[in-house]
Amino acid sequence: MFAVFSQFLAATAGRGVTRVAYLAVATGLAMLLVLTVDPAYEATHHWVDSLLWVCLAFFAMEWLIRLWRGFRAGRGWHYVASARGLVDAAAAVAVPLAMGFGVDPKSAWLFSVLWLLKIVPGIPGLRQLRRVIVLEARPLVSVLVLFVMVLFLASVAVYALERDGQPVAFGSLPATLWWAVVTLTTTGYGDVVPVTPLGRLVAGLVMISGLGVFGLWTGILATAFAAETRRDNFLRTWEAVSRVPFFASLGAAAIADVTQMLRMIELPTRTTIIRKGHHGDCMYFIASGEVEVELPGRKIRLGEGAFFGEMALLGNSLRSADITTTQLSRLLVLDLADFRMLMARHPDLAVTIDAEAKRRIAENN
Amino acid sequence: MFAVFSQFLAATAGRGVTRVAYLAVATGLAMLLVLTVDPAYEATHHWVDSLLWVCLAFFAMEWLIRLWRGFRAGRGWHYVASARGLVDAAAAVAVPLAMGFGVDPKSAWLFSVLWLLKIVPGIPGLRQLRRVIVLEARPLVSVLVLFVMVLFLASVAVYALERDGQPVAFGSLPATLWWAVVTLTTTGYGDVVPVTPLGRLVAGLVMISGLGVFGLWTGILATAFAAETRRDNFLRTWEAVSRVPFFASLGAAAIADVTQMLRMIELPTRTTIIRKGHHGDCMYFIASGEVEVELPGRKIRLGEGAFFGEMALLGNSLRSADITTTQLSRLLVLDLADFRMLMARHPDLAVTIDAEAKRRIAENN
Amino acid sequence: MFAVFSQFLAATAGRGVTRVAYLAVATGLAMLLVLTVDPAYEATHHWVDSLLWVCLAFFAMEWLIRLWRGFRAGRGWHYVASARGLVDAAAAVAVPLAMGFGVDPKSAWLFSVLWLLKIVPGIPGLRQLRRVIVLEARPLVSVLVLFVMVLFLASVAVYALERDGQPVAFGSLPATLWWAVVTLTTTGYGDVVPVTPLGRLVAGLVMISGLGVFGLWTGILATAFAAETRRDNFLRTWEAVSRVPFFASLGAAAIADVTQMLRMIELPTRTTIIRKGHHGDCMYFIASGEVEVELPGRKIRLGEGAFFGEMALLGNSLRSADITTTQLSRLLVLDLADFRMLMARHPDLAVTIDAEAKRRIAENN
Amino acid sequence: MFAVFSQFLAATAGRGVTRVAYLAVATGLAMLLVLTVDPAYEATHHWVDSLLWVCLAFFAMEWLIRLWRGFRAGRGWHYVASARGLVDAAAAVAVPLAMGFGVDPKSAWLFSVLWLLKIVPGIPGLRQLRRVIVLEARPLVSVLVLFVMVLFLASVAVYALERDGQPVAFGSLPATLWWAVVTLTTTGYGDVVPVTPLGRLVAGLVMISGLGVFGLWTGILATAFAAETRRDNFLRTWEAVSRVPFFASLGAAAIADVTQMLRMIELPTRTTIIRKGHHGDCMYFIASGEVEVELPGRKIRLGEGAFFGEMALLGNSLRSADITTTQLSRLLVLDLADFRMLMARHPDLAVTIDAEAKRRIAENN
Repeated sequence: MFAVFSQFLAATAGRGVTRVAYLAVATGLAMLLVLTVDPAYEATHHWVDSLLWVCLAFFAMEWLIRLWRGFRAGRGWHYVASARGLVDAAAAVAVPLAMGFGVDPKSAWLFSVLWLLKIVPGIPGLRQLRRVIVLEARPLVSVLVLFVMVLFLASVAVYALERDGQPVAFGSLPATLWWAVVTLTTTGYGDVVPVTPLGRLVAGLVMISGLGVFGLWTGILATAFAAETRRDNFLRTWEAVSRVPFFASLGAAAIADVTQMLRMIELPTRTTIIRKGHHGDCMYFIASGEVEVELPGRKIRLGEGAFFGEMALLGNSLRSADITTTQLSRLLVLDLADFRMLMARHPDLAVTIDAEAKRRIAENN
Repeated sequence: MFAVFSQFLAATAGRGVTRVAYLAVATGLAMLLVLTVDPAYEATHHWVDSLLWVCLAFFAMEWLIRLWRGFRAGRGWHYVASARGLVDAAAAVAVPLAMGFGVDPKSAWLFSVLWLLKIVPGIPGLRQLRRVIVLEARPLVSVLVLFVMVLFLASVAVYALERDGQPVAFGSLPATLWWAVVTLTTTGYGDVVPVTPLGRLVAGLVMISGLGVFGLWTGILATAFAAETRRDNFLRTWEAVSRVPFFASLGAAAIADVTQMLRMIELPTRTTIIRKGHHGDCMYFIASGEVEVELPGRKIRLGEGAFFGEMALLGNSLRSADITTTQLSRLLVLDLADFRMLMARHPDLAVTIDAEAKRRIAENN
Repeated sequence: MFAVFSQFLAATAGRGVTRVAYLAVATGLAMLLVLTVDPAYEATHHWVDSLLWVCLAFFAMEWLIRLWRGFRAGRGWHYVASARGLVDAAAAVAVPLAMGFGVDPKSAWLFSVLWLLKIVPGIPGLRQLRRVIVLEARPLVSVLVLFVMVLFLASVAVYALERDGQPVAFGSLPATLWWAVVTLTTTGYGDVVPVTPLGRLVAGLVMISGLGVFGLWTGILATAFAAETRRDNFLRTWEAVSRVPFFASLGAAAIADVTQMLRMIELPTRTTIIRKGHHGDCMYFIASGEVEVELPGRKIRLGEGAFFGEMALLGNSLRSADITTTQLSRLLVLDLADFRMLMARHPDLAVTIDAEAKRRIAENN
Repeated sequence: MFAVFSQFLAATAGRGVTRVAYLAVATGLAMLLVLTVDPAYEATHHWVDSLLWVCLAFFAMEWLIRLWRGFRAGRGWHYVASARGLVDAAAAVAVPLAMGFGVDPKSAWLFSVLWLLKIVPGIPGLRQLRRVIVLEARPLVSVLVLFVMVLFLASVAVYALERDGQPVAFGSLPATLWWAVVTLTTTGYGDVVPVTPLGRLVAGLVMISGLGVFGLWTGILATAFAAETRRDNFLRTWEAVSRVPFFASLGAAAIADVTQMLRMIELPTRTTIIRKGHHGDCMYFIASGEVEVELPGRKIRLGEGAFFGEMALLGNSLRSADITTTQLSRLLVLDLADFRMLMARHPDLAVTIDAEAKRRIAENN
């Protein structure tokens, strides 16, 4: 069984997280939710327990096989110490360990929430988010420090003002800090509320500071995100652009320019890209794969390097045929706005596209 | 009556949603509100019931006619399966169906809230919003996944910490998840509040994470929106610009450049664009339609391709005459800042505008 | 007295709002606050009443004089119907009118909150804000419509789910709408909270939608604001730049380029701009006014068109003298980063500035 | 002891805030928290009191020595009046002064929260934040004024509507203002909630205005932050770029262009920059310092002006060797996206880098 599982893992290793792992995480979490609802658990505890153990067995086996393969490849300790290895280990041993230390089973299973960490490598835009946070660490930390300073200064002020009137809610600085966090994040539970006029004045200032802190925070993230999105798109598109013969005639500077206008999409087999009669506002270049054009009476196939969809941009803006992928394809999308810019800046490309469009119209009639 | 209604629909079909449909939706919702307020309903139930039935009849008829026309044109199933067809169907049959299944009328009428979906195609910037969300789906999903992870991890931690002290509020994971959602979105009802020091520490971190998640979310949307706004404006303006003879002398690259500076507006008949004596900070090109200049003693009409308002930008910045549209007109607005940029980059345009302004001044004196 | 007041108004008419008007508004509002606090009012009602009447008299007189002057200048009805005229009228007559209709005085004085509207023309960046909102009206309205749709759909769902359990709080759609607004804006009073599992699920979705709506809203405003800031700065700076002889040698295109780099500031008399020994990261061009350089042993005055502060950018980054305005001056600030860009793009300017800096160093030693 | 301390201060004066000062602030705040929690304080009051006095002594001594040194250098009054001098003074004398005036010790120690202000100069991005706020002061103030206007208008309306029903919560305008602030910032404690239909309508509008105000606020800050980040990065990078011989051949305009693409990082001794076998998406230029390349069998050192990491960008994207700093180094990072742009725009640089990469490959095989 170990061998079968290992084969299975190897077969699915290409993707960050396997579908089975996603299923195991989802099942595990669902069972964890049921486990804590007493009536539901009493009715179904056989099922819940079994499924939790199955999930645990899956994650334990996954860890063991990765360990075994890692050490066989001589990179065992590297895997153990990597973020992924630590998450795998935690997913495999946290629950049994807790049980071993005498924690009652229902509490021990709570550690299975760590299984959630296994899906982290599969989150699509995570690398992008992490870069944003790393690059903007300095200003973000500044804002956090400001946040903490406002928190403490406001807490001491409100503590001094309110402790006599509300000795329980504002009886100590830690209790007042709780109020301050709840207020500064504009959460506002209302479990602890200042009642003296001066206390309320300070509270009002804290709330407005909360908006300010939040605004700065968002401003920083928005700025960084804008830069990162441009960069990410450029990297993903460049490779594909330079392989399309249509753009090969351009110099390197022009390719960099074109790359910024294009957007790459990946489409699975048999996806309809263009539907006849629909409004068209972009054209496509095939970076890899193949598409099928359904003309009246016959079908034409276009392969790597070809382009299509240009007729709606040049003519009456309606698509003239259905176009579908025949295999997994990567297409470069050129928006109408960018199409016009591109044609304006590179008249030679405009000539080529125009000629091809005319040839196609002639052919189809 | 069916024929009359069909004629009426055909006459108003050009616009996304007819004014009558808007009225029906508004009436229906208002009646629905009254229906649920017992004293108000008792006093007016004849009116309320009648109006609701009238609205329902309107939507049912609209759906039937569209079905009929769809099938007559051979695109019936296409309409049935389209988003619009489904909404029309839901608006027409949801309430009668509920009544048919024995739901009491007052509850059945609640389904009439679906009528609200009929105004979706009429929302002006919706296409723009949808593109933003589609294009940024990857990072938005990432943030959502992070949101869910924080939610679960925090819930399990707070559940473990608070369940002994507050067995009702934090007695199960689903109950704790409710608290976590309320806290992470910084809503903070205050119906469930952690009281142990550690629970409050986790809660504080959740609130701060909430701000972070929100900031990322906003940052992504702001970035995408900026790009989309530029694109949308370019598309709407390009067509109009290339039809103004004034810009025809420019090459395609320069037209693309000019297009980014102009903003298109649509004005109904008899709208005053410029008022004499007011401060002027933009000039206008007529893309289509006609305007009337009220000079002392006589009126001049300017048609497609003409420009006006340039004198305030060149001279003392006060408008020298009232200018009003005589028909539905599309104007291209050029801001003072962009006017100066444009004049700087395209000196030949500057010469033309200057000459025309001088000719007009000479003529008027 | 009428004449004196009229003279006073004429003398201060240049500015949007006079300082006396600001004072009257502030006093009026402060008195209004005191008026509603019973113990405070009882102790000071002579003062409060008198001051309120004085403020009212001031605003009434201001309105009458403006009316009189308007009609004398033949633009009386224009003033009456303008936004400003309406605000002036409301400030003058709302309180007496309410008293006339028999409202008790304490309630009638509440209308004096309208005095606050008189400061609107004096808000510095208001025009900019208004343009942002007008230009982005389409997408902002879209978001608002989405907001209302979520509101109604969620209200009907939660009403259906919660009305049996909480017949008071969720007993009618209007009551449920109140809950929905409080939740969708993430305010979360907690006065009305869903308790059924399904109701809480809907509520959770509403909160997350709230973040989404808010994010879109902010994204739209941020985008528009960025464009508007650039435009506003360009307009304010252009005029000044083109009057500085230093830049006159540049062509119009280069001036437009330079304008985007400069930032205009207005400084009152005897403001110290540069302090000796401080770190310098910008240089200044004098658009109008005059400054005094305090060299060891003597003072030099620099007038319109001169520049200063360039030595810190070229040399050791420390300011070498105190520089103070001698009159109200408008300066163009060039940041270090932009200074380097500018010098790189316009080498002739670099030569001029270098030569002047060397001449000054030679002169001072 | 005074002399020793003075020496210590002088030795650590280079950095904004010494590590010892950070430690003293952290200790002081922690003790302050303990001081206010009665049971904890009773158990540990000897320790708490001693540590607080030690911190106070530290800050007092720091102030005295800075004063003494300031006056010795003839800049004593300058220091006393500076922001830093005032903070130092407050940290040193606030607590003793309060005790001197007869405040009980536990309350007097609350002033030690002012010690927190001493870390302000050490916050990394503070200068940047301050510039953002200063430059955008005009629109930020506008938004604040709008905020206050909405606050007052809503308060008066809700006061008039709710005071009869809830004479305690809405019994005076100041009390209603408290509600308005809590609502407009979307904090929503829920301690005071309108109950009349009209009051709730106004409240709903206030909440939506709250989102609007917040959105404007964030939009302004985001815009300013984007500009400021670009500027800050340019300034920090320019100096370094112009000292790298590789870029020296470029003209000033091209250097300005290159500077915008590079990002400067500072790394301490023995930091591993590149790890063999990892994915590489940037290259590095050494602005100052030195790195060590671990080739198979030997080590090569690269000094100021050299570059590395280009092979992963040109070839198979995997790093071919470990590279570590041997001393404190400042590196200029060139991202893959920018690398391609740069190579496209400056073909001569591309040739140089290509040649060096080929030489290295030849050498290593």
